[in-house]
Amino acid sequence: MTAFGYRITATDKSARAGMLQTAHGNVRTPAFMPVGTAGTVKGMAPAEIAATGTEMVLANTYHLMLRPGGARLARLGGLHEFMNWPGPILTDSGGYQVLSLAELRRIDESGVTFRSHLDGTAHELTPERAMEAQEQIDSDIAMVLDECPPYPVAKDVAAESMQLSLRWAARCREAWRDRAGYGLFGIVQGSVFPDLREECARGLRQIGFEGYAIGGLAVGEGEEAMLRVVDQTVPHLPEAAPRYLMGVGKPDQLVAAVLRGIDMFDCVLPTRSGRTGQAFTRTGPINIRNARFAEDSLPLDPECGCDACRKFSRAYLHHLVRAREMLGAMLLTRHNVMFYQDIVADLHVAISSGDTAAWAEAFTARYQTAGVS
Amino acid sequence: MTAFGYRITATDKSARAGMLQTAHGNVRTPAFMPVGTAGTVKGMAPAEIAATGTEMVLANTYHLMLRPGGARLARLGGLHEFMNWPGPILTDSGGYQVLSLAELRRIDESGVTFRSHLDGTAHELTPERAMEAQEQIDSDIAMVLDECPPYPVAKDVAAESMQLSLRWAARCREAWRDRAGYGLFGIVQGSVFPDLREECARGLRQIGFEGYAIGGLAVGEGEEAMLRVVDQTVPHLPEAAPRYLMGVGKPDQLVAAVLRGIDMFDCVLPTRSGRTGQAFTRTGPINIRNARFAEDSLPLDPECGCDACRKFSRAYLHHLVRAREMLGAMLLTRHNVMFYQDIVADLHVAISSGDTAAWAEAFTARYQTAGVS
Repeated sequence: MTAFGYRITATDKSARAGMLQTAHGNVRTPAFMPVGTAGTVKGMAPAEIAATGTEMVLANTYHLMLRPGGARLARLGGLHEFMNWPGPILTDSGGYQVLSLAELRRIDESGVTFRSHLDGTAHELTPERAMEAQEQIDSDIAMVLDECPPYPVAKDVAAESMQLSLRWAARCREAWRDRAGYGLFGIVQGSVFPDLREECARGLRQIGFEGYAIGGLAVGEGEEAMLRVVDQTVPHLPEAAPRYLMGVGKPDQLVAAVLRGIDMFDCVLPTRSGRTGQAFTRTGPINIRNARFAEDSLPLDPECGCDACRKFSRAYLHHLVRAREMLGAMLLTRHNVMFYQDIVADLHVAISSGDTAAWAEAFTARYQTAGVS
Repeated sequence: MTAFGYRITATDKSARAGMLQTAHGNVRTPAFMPVGTAGTVKGMAPAEIAATGTEMVLANTYHLMLRPGGARLARLGGLHEFMNWPGPILTDSGGYQVLSLAELRRIDESGVTFRSHLDGTAHELTPERAMEAQEQIDSDIAMVLDECPPYPVAKDVAAESMQLSLRWAARCREAWRDRAGYGLFGIVQGSVFPDLREECARGLRQIGFEGYAIGGLAVGEGEEAMLRVVDQTVPHLPEAAPRYLMGVGKPDQLVAAVLRGIDMFDCVLPTRSGRTGQAFTRTGPINIRNARFAEDSLPLDPECGCDACRKFSRAYLHHLVRAREMLGAMLLTRHNVMFYQDIVADLHVAISSGDTAAWAEAFTARYQTAGVS
């Protein structure tokens, strides 16, 4: 089995194109991971996920440890086998969702205790348990347990929280079991405070990880602040390791972050939007429920090669979404995920040929024009 | 374009195997049509429908005339084009669903007036309008407008209703526009009264249709009464025309009806059940939500060749359905429709080789054993 690794194949100013190597296959970067919370990217069978160009999916440890449960998942052969996704899987640590979904949660030095939002049962998530759960899931890339402070947050609170996250990160590294092709990523916290971000990045590098994520963003700070934190944090991350911007974002935000040196993304936006009638197109987002699409026989995005665009009209998708038919959500989800994958694939090519700035400018100008062709 | 036709290729006692020829292709019989109420078989894209062996789908005129609307559908090129299903489509007349779904409905000699259950707008469905709407949909097989009395019903009420349906059938035949490859089916009514069924069948034959349906069943009369009506009605239908038992039914009921000379079926059971966790298997129906499947790594039905069975375990399907994930409904629906298609395909072969009784007995004995292998 191949060792876990990251190979940068081209750079263009700060932007990087490369290849992640994992136990379950390679992932071209920049990479976008659709979110498969409960062991399924909502509304997509694995063949449909692969058809979008997706090479790696993200799953949520919090959900999976509660249902079907980590031990059960391990007995069933791990998540790749369970969901029949043979490719790479990244899992979060569960910490973020404990804090956003669980009840009666309590944080102390040892970890988080909480009650399940499903059945009220009591659970504990420590750095050690987060490593165990992600090994039970068999994720190729595990994330350290961290605390994600709310936004806005006072600097002293952000600093204390970041220090706790650093101590947890060291315990995760210690507890993590080394296996060929598997990697553990650290997460930089520190809210919008550049010195805290720098201190956290330095602390994580001292511990040493296979990759580094920027966490605690896309929590209400706004796009400008988000990109500023990226700008301030990236210089403190090692050149050779993959960089992952967690929970981001909109199509034009992905482009902006790649220009700033980010390699990996995950976001629920393409899948969640697909279930509410929102579609991303090269000329901007549209809501297919809008009455103007009722007799529009064009495809969603005439330049897209997905099933929804090659086989169906806007009028039909409009009808399906209005009639609350499952197929509407299924088709819009396929389209949106493919739209995201097309962006990162185009960026890979643009970086490799030194055209990144021009490609990004053209994409963004067109994407940010209102309305649809 | 080929003429509409039906060719019987083999018989085995009362059972028949054959081929329907329509403007949009051939359909091997016995045939099962999954229900695509609003222009989509819930949770299945057309390629997934075709992968189950389905050759013809049913759509509901009532739903389509309200949304997207008949005139709009015609402007968009008809339902085949709209839903991207190139194969044959059969539509009901809309009458049954006006009576079960619409508000403030009023029946008189001319037809039915009602208010839409979607937005309260007033509509009229006459025999002439039912023909027009089905032509706007472009269905290969249209059904006459009929009245389906409730069960139980007094004989004089059933008789009056049947006479009204006969007069409407004559008006439908008159209004129907002849097109190569398209056909219009009459519907035998008469509740559970053999003489009314006979009288209705005779009246329809006098008018003359491309096929004959037995309607007004599966409305609470029970399986025994349903099969008795089939037994009493089939002898009064022309040998050479296709026979369609509307709204039936469970897997073993399909088998029983084919033995009695039925050629075509439609039913929401495989699709609707698929959305509530019920799966049909060769050893009987199961509910995948049941806790005993939580760590069961076998496929739903080890003898099935569908995607759900070839690629996923009962444990995963159990998890998806418990977690209310769309993919659970999608996969169970694919499986259930394929299970139905496998039955009619096996029956076609059994009839062609004169093994129908033995096949039916073996299938039914195994299907009716409780539990799952």
